[in-house]
Amino acid sequence: MTEKLFFKSDYMEGCHPRVLQRLVETNLEHTVGYGEDEYCVAAKAAIRAVCACPDAQVEFLVGGTQTNATVIDAFLQVYQGVVTAETGHICDHEAGAIEQSGHKVLTLPATDGKLTADRVEKLVCSCLANGDRQAIVMPGLVYISQPTEYGTLYSLQELTDLSRVCKQYGLTLYADGARLAYALACPENDVSLPDLSRLTDAFYIGGTKCGALFGEALVVPDGSRLKYFPTTMKQHGALLAKGRLLGVQFSELFAGGLYENLGKTAVSHAENLRTALTEVGFPLVGSSHTNQVFCIMENNKLQKLEQTVELTRWEQADDTHTVVRFVTGWATTQADTEALCALLKTL
Amino acid sequence: MTEKLFFKSDYMEGCHPRVLQRLVETNLEHTVGYGEDEYCVAAKAAIRAVCACPDAQVEFLVGGTQTNATVIDAFLQVYQGVVTAETGHICDHEAGAIEQSGHKVLTLPATDGKLTADRVEKLVCSCLANGDRQAIVMPGLVYISQPTEYGTLYSLQELTDLSRVCKQYGLTLYADGARLAYALACPENDVSLPDLSRLTDAFYIGGTKCGALFGEALVVPDGSRLKYFPTTMKQHGALLAKGRLLGVQFSELFAGGLYENLGKTAVSHAENLRTALTEVGFPLVGSSHTNQVFCIMENNKLQKLEQTVELTRWEQADDTHTVVRFVTGWATTQADTEALCALLKTL
Amino acid sequence: MTEKLFFKSDYMEGCHPRVLQRLVETNLEHTVGYGEDEYCVAAKAAIRAVCACPDAQVEFLVGGTQTNATVIDAFLQVYQGVVTAETGHICDHEAGAIEQSGHKVLTLPATDGKLTADRVEKLVCSCLANGDRQAIVMPGLVYISQPTEYGTLYSLQELTDLSRVCKQYGLTLYADGARLAYALACPENDVSLPDLSRLTDAFYIGGTKCGALFGEALVVPDGSRLKYFPTTMKQHGALLAKGRLLGVQFSELFAGGLYENLGKTAVSHAENLRTALTEVGFPLVGSSHTNQVFCIMENNKLQKLEQTVELTRWEQADDTHTVVRFVTGWATTQADTEALCALLKTL
Amino acid sequence: MTEKLFFKSDYMEGCHPRVLQRLVETNLEHTVGYGEDEYCVAAKAAIRAVCACPDAQVEFLVGGTQTNATVIDAFLQVYQGVVTAETGHICDHEAGAIEQSGHKVLTLPATDGKLTADRVEKLVCSCLANGDRQAIVMPGLVYISQPTEYGTLYSLQELTDLSRVCKQYGLTLYADGARLAYALACPENDVSLPDLSRLTDAFYIGGTKCGALFGEALVVPDGSRLKYFPTTMKQHGALLAKGRLLGVQFSELFAGGLYENLGKTAVSHAENLRTALTEVGFPLVGSSHTNQVFCIMENNKLQKLEQTVELTRWEQADDTHTVVRFVTGWATTQADTEALCALLKTL
Repeated sequence: MTEKLFFKSDYMEGCHPRVLQRLVETNLEHTVGYGEDEYCVAAKAAIRAVCACPDAQVEFLVGGTQTNATVIDAFLQVYQGVVTAETGHICDHEAGAIEQSGHKVLTLPATDGKLTADRVEKLVCSCLANGDRQAIVMPGLVYISQPTEYGTLYSLQELTDLSRVCKQYGLTLYADGARLAYALACPENDVSLPDLSRLTDAFYIGGTKCGALFGEALVVPDGSRLKYFPTTMKQHGALLAKGRLLGVQFSELFAGGLYENLGKTAVSHAENLRTALTEVGFPLVGSSHTNQVFCIMENNKLQKLEQTVELTRWEQADDTHTVVRFVTGWATTQADTEALCALLKTL
Repeated sequence: MTEKLFFKSDYMEGCHPRVLQRLVETNLEHTVGYGEDEYCVAAKAAIRAVCACPDAQVEFLVGGTQTNATVIDAFLQVYQGVVTAETGHICDHEAGAIEQSGHKVLTLPATDGKLTADRVEKLVCSCLANGDRQAIVMPGLVYISQPTEYGTLYSLQELTDLSRVCKQYGLTLYADGARLAYALACPENDVSLPDLSRLTDAFYIGGTKCGALFGEALVVPDGSRLKYFPTTMKQHGALLAKGRLLGVQFSELFAGGLYENLGKTAVSHAENLRTALTEVGFPLVGSSHTNQVFCIMENNKLQKLEQTVELTRWEQADDTHTVVRFVTGWATTQADTEALCALLKTL
Repeated sequence: MTEKLFFKSDYMEGCHPRVLQRLVETNLEHTVGYGEDEYCVAAKAAIRAVCACPDAQVEFLVGGTQTNATVIDAFLQVYQGVVTAETGHICDHEAGAIEQSGHKVLTLPATDGKLTADRVEKLVCSCLANGDRQAIVMPGLVYISQPTEYGTLYSLQELTDLSRVCKQYGLTLYADGARLAYALACPENDVSLPDLSRLTDAFYIGGTKCGALFGEALVVPDGSRLKYFPTTMKQHGALLAKGRLLGVQFSELFAGGLYENLGKTAVSHAENLRTALTEVGFPLVGSSHTNQVFCIMENNKLQKLEQTVELTRWEQADDTHTVVRFVTGWATTQADTEALCALLKTL
Repeated sequence: MTEKLFFKSDYMEGCHPRVLQRLVETNLEHTVGYGEDEYCVAAKAAIRAVCACPDAQVEFLVGGTQTNATVIDAFLQVYQGVVTAETGHICDHEAGAIEQSGHKVLTLPATDGKLTADRVEKLVCSCLANGDRQAIVMPGLVYISQPTEYGTLYSLQELTDLSRVCKQYGLTLYADGARLAYALACPENDVSLPDLSRLTDAFYIGGTKCGALFGEALVVPDGSRLKYFPTTMKQHGALLAKGRLLGVQFSELFAGGLYENLGKTAVSHAENLRTALTEVGFPLVGSSHTNQVFCIMENNKLQKLEQTVELTRWEQADDTHTVVRFVTGWATTQADTEALCALLKTL
């Protein structure tokens, strides 16, 4: 029986073996709870260092939706909403978690999954100019993802522009980095962790999809902004009792370049896959350079492929074609990628 | 240098070695996310079996506060509140997580950390009889813990009485089992998992404090009650992407009696400690028979003890005495307990 | 100096003189509070009678946004959202009041300001078929307005279709009747109060814009659906202490056909205005037959008109034209309408 | 048949005839909506003047619960709760409206219905010192009532002390003035409107119970504190479309000393009633000097009295006695008070 090939998503396995090894080694140690242990202290220091942001507040949460909902609730005033691209993860993929804490999600059209500074500025100006001001939700925070849901990247210029508009109008800029390893590892990327620290008010470094069992590291560059954030985390059920599990994992991810390296491997597999798809004649869709690969495939070939490969049917292209997504990750092997590329040629 | 002895709480270590071993063995397997994998399926089946409740809905969440907030929000109507003993965990230890989802916590006096059926009935009757009904929050759910914050246990009779009152007035009865292993393992306990399944509308089997890295297993005996609970979980940021981590852990905890056995060991250590404390002349406080041990200690002896032992100062007893809490757990060793008992004699 | 002509909205004056007269007559009477007085009892009976719905629950609230937010919160479960046309009042005109109580607003494209049964059905089916069900907000209630924000009307057939789809999929159908008097009075309207009672799960009869000082009468045809609604009202700050003020007003509005008659007068003024606009060559926009009149006007003529007339600039049509809204109401006089029509000819 | 005597509460009638007269006179005028009309502007100016607080933000809301919930939500951060005496109105008389917006109500024991600066300080210090800080709700706002639920008054010294503690620990001090007219009118009162403006961060001047049909005037002395408060009002369904109704009423209440005078009349009736009760031998309870009168009455005499008098059974005193509340108001007449006093002598 043929083993399947797994390109469905980047959270289908446990964690990188080095991370697991550290969890095993530290398992029976005794530490205090709720993130005040030495592993969390060390991991926070490591993250401040790679971000070149010595005053940053760093907090560890368990998952992405939880992080988004807690951060957005912490930053917004009651009368404010969050601005996002209509393709943003918080729109239709988080079961109304933002609204659950009382805030409206204000959507703008996306280009390649991205917001533009111009569109944000127009929205804010239109709200400020609205004669009926008390009836509208004021934008308070701009939510972006790096990379986006479509695997695309904000350039340094685009991020700088967004940052400028946000500062000008008093908006908080927050970046969801669920797959940040795969952005940072991308040759086309020119936005570094220090850039994110300089240009955003908060961002998170994704662990769940980037080598950890679970966990996201929130970075708030101005460490005085969210003084009571751990209370807000507890209130949102987002404060892990054994916080050291997160400290141990992020310590390992940011020791010896592991986070960087596992990102590079996955991106390289994705790039090889893009080459193969193009050669075989499946047109790529969008402009992802990260670990997500989108292409158009004839439905009959897709059905055949799905007998061996786990992937995602993204959306219908037309009556006979489908947009398909392949995702590589830290767990994708050279052998898997080669097997998939070979398979594509046989369709 | 003397190693410290750790009796501060039951979430200071990682997880039981057998649980960790399973995580290691399954680490590189590929599974679908969000709890629909085969490990979750197996763990749910195992839990339904030990609960003798084949129709139960079983869901896995990450932590206790998260579970309480999500479950209570899922069961309550907007106009309803949750009834709890004033010593309940949801009162002052969860940062307002219940109120965050819009519900009032209605407190009643506790006896030994417990609610009585009589007090609940009086509250409900007084609300129903209130001439000013539209101005008061209606009790909708009764929250109890087994064991309680004070390590005490509801007897089968007490639970039966609470269950009867709840049924009579249409209230949901929910039991927080953060330390349930240590209740089930207790010789004085006469409430089994099938009893909980029969007498409550929902309860959770604690993993975080009972041998897992993290995780709580919610059991809703009437599997048709909370059809959309996974959506509510996602909305609360409580749906783990790699749900299989919870499935793997609970499968192991409920295979071969591990959950039962680790509870027994911890309770036996606690019992030995109680004997030692009594012999040495530190009076026990309350009537805990589970893994929490409360006693009164002279402050000067306490200070000496704290040089070697990690414990919890529970509250001030009088000017010269303190109520002290020792907690044993699955990670407590025979050697540690013996060392502590020996130490007590030297104070 | 010329007095201005007021066609800006239908809440610019106090209340119909007959309503005011009743408030004056009853001012010093003593009654119990919170809507349990005899005036409320009588008004509720009168409304049940005109709705031909003897078992309906009728409740009085103060304003429209308050009514929408309270009703929607009362009907929805935590995991549910409300479906509305993207032009619905709850989308961008209520400052996020729906989200404030934790619910997402799910928008659908509108035709003439209206939802279609077909679009609702497609949305629900797509949600039910979604493989990622736990990540999406489930539609729980369909919000419509009669008349809509654009003054248009659901026909009896359209409402019947919506009702059928809602029943089929277990959705609550709720109609916002802020301007219901002007719908009921419209010759083109074929939806009566008994029809609304038969086809919706709840609707409100607007008072604020239809002759009352303030106040909206919620009708829930199945009187057993929202047993604790007064508690939810109190929780939302929507329970008026001197509830009898609402009872007195609605008693008068539904005595001797006042509500019907004041609607007719306003609609007749609007119709005259439409005729005048068409004659003068200002093209009508949309298909409103109620008390809102939309037309396109050259900007220079508009500026001139605004020197004497209070109206609303609805939106820009093109660089030199604007869509303008005129609103008539119970307070619009024959003289005002004639003056406006005369003025239009002079532009 | 004997007409009943009404001493049940102060919201059983419409409004003071002078206020009604102004509503009648202005009824058919056209104004803009949402509180931006000239009557609101004038009323705000009048209130700023009597408060000697030219920079104050003044906003008009409809009712007390609505005002409390909206103000508290506007001031608190997500992780904060509101501190109140356990007898405070927001505890058990507002159906969980505070919790509805996500905030916990933190209760302290009351003395004569009042909080003390000392108790507030102890609570805050204990929260700040708590080792488990992330698990507790931080006090963010102190809620008091002037007069209290028991008709008692904060002295200038007590209010100054509370204000000092609040400033010291960064807490907002907010006073509920539902019956403020009856406090200001009291000979024993030494807290003026300018004092409230100087010592609190916000308070409201009650209209509903003090001569208006409905309405409360919120005063925020530092006019820059709550810039977007009208949006928060709209979000809470608390922004009246015909805002001018509130402007007209408060203009009249604060023209020519009406608010002051109607308070004095009611307090004088209450004082006469206290004298009569004492003379007849019904012991007064508590130390109210405002328009609420509490005394103890034998149950058989109470039953007889209730045949003619509407009053409130406050609570059971013992098996044969009840604590009874009489309330006077702007609508209480000399004749009514004399009739009641005469009646008491016949029991």
